[in-house]
Amino acid sequence: MKTLVLLRHGESQFNKENRFTGWTDVPLSDKGINEATQAGKAMKDAGFVFDMAYTSVLKRAIKTLWISLEELDQMWLPVVNSWRLNEKHYGKLQGLNKAETAAKYGEEQVLLWRRAYDVRPPMYDPEDVAEQRKEARYHDVDQIHYMLGESLQDTVERVIPLWEQEISLQLKAGKRILVAAHGNSLRAFVKYLDHKTEAEILKFNIPTGIPLVYELDDDLKPIRSYFLADEETLKKEMEKVANQGKAK
Amino acid sequence: MKTLVLLRHGESQFNKENRFTGWTDVPLSDKGINEATQAGKAMKDAGFVFDMAYTSVLKRAIKTLWISLEELDQMWLPVVNSWRLNEKHYGKLQGLNKAETAAKYGEEQVLLWRRAYDVRPPMYDPEDVAEQRKEARYHDVDQIHYMLGESLQDTVERVIPLWEQEISLQLKAGKRILVAAHGNSLRAFVKYLDHKTEAEILKFNIPTGIPLVYELDDDLKPIRSYFLADEETLKKEMEKVANQGKAK
Repeated sequence: MKTLVLLRHGESQFNKENRFTGWTDVPLSDKGINEATQAGKAMKDAGFVFDMAYTSVLKRAIKTLWISLEELDQMWLPVVNSWRLNEKHYGKLQGLNKAETAAKYGEEQVLLWRRAYDVRPPMYDPEDVAEQRKEARYHDVDQIHYMLGESLQDTVERVIPLWEQEISLQLKAGKRILVAAHGNSLRAFVKYLDHKTEAEILKFNIPTGIPLVYELDDDLKPIRSYFLADEETLKKEMEKVANQGKAK
Repeated sequence: MKTLVLLRHGESQFNKENRFTGWTDVPLSDKGINEATQAGKAMKDAGFVFDMAYTSVLKRAIKTLWISLEELDQMWLPVVNSWRLNEKHYGKLQGLNKAETAAKYGEEQVLLWRRAYDVRPPMYDPEDVAEQRKEARYHDVDQIHYMLGESLQDTVERVIPLWEQEISLQLKAGKRILVAAHGNSLRAFVKYLDHKTEAEILKFNIPTGIPLVYELDDDLKPIRSYFLADEETLKKEMEKVANQGKAK
């Protein structure tokens, strides 16, 4: 049996302020740090041991991973950082308050931007991201459009090569893997592994700070998957995520 | 010009209790966390930017690195963990209080164990480390004697392959490198780079939490090296390290 655990980072400063974050590199809030600690403890208590970890190049996911590894007492684990695991790029919506945006454009448009499979947000111009493109962590971004604004389709498209060329090979080699990343980059995994339709994946919410465990067979087909949390906690967390796009 | 920065971890729980630590995996003390934060700030203030980092598989060095990377705002940096950067293995002295050991065996014997180049401490038996050998972080330890107890000569011997086969190649490729490790594994670098004699390296103390900066030419010969701290701080820290072996 192969083990893959997906962990969505806890609350960031922008989540707290209900802002579109995307590739904006904001830190975890105190609550987010606490969520990561709880996630780490839950994995530790359930006896999880990993052989390697993957995360994005954004500090809220990296910190979530670090805190988890510290709780797991596996700080020495090999870690791969990749921009392919970054959150969906929200283009010019990045930094805007979600409720304000909903009030301005309407809840439906915001829900489209947040949840429609192939609708892109208002896009940056290439010159807006000229500085960011020079950063070492983004030196191997192969298509500039990922840095201008993405639909969920774009995000899935750029996550999958990391799965196919790296993570799936490591799993087949017997490595137990922890992936600490973001709501939408983790959706790419769920869509791929569970063969979810575009409509299904739009409705699938991964709560923050609750490990999503996949047990896979030798061909990496899921035998079962489950959230590492009691049902009540899980229901509460799921509702919270689903309600984020509503105007306040 | 090539840049290599060596950073010795700050105070650990065992340092605080004046115990021989070696490969015992103890966390930083609060003071150690503070030292790492100061080291990170000092590198940030001096404008250091890195391309990759190396550390040991022991949490006090890893945490020092993580804190530094957080202060540097470079948390996404590729990190290589290697047992070759672990502290000198103190064999059966590990866990013993240095002052107690000095009172029992005499200051001179303790100084020999701590500082003589080719004197090994009382050694573990292979069966004592049978469990540890199974740990993934130690799967590629090529000579069991490194896990039983080391002289500084042993430590230098097992650090150098990492330098020759990895770090030096990365430096030559233009990578700016931060190494967060331990008093004796970092001595191996200083001995090698500065062609110090055995006698000289015994007297060379690297203070905790103060970055040691090497500027190297294309052949990796040092152009200059310096501690990133004002002279007074440095003198105080150096004396503290030198006094650790004395009976209290």
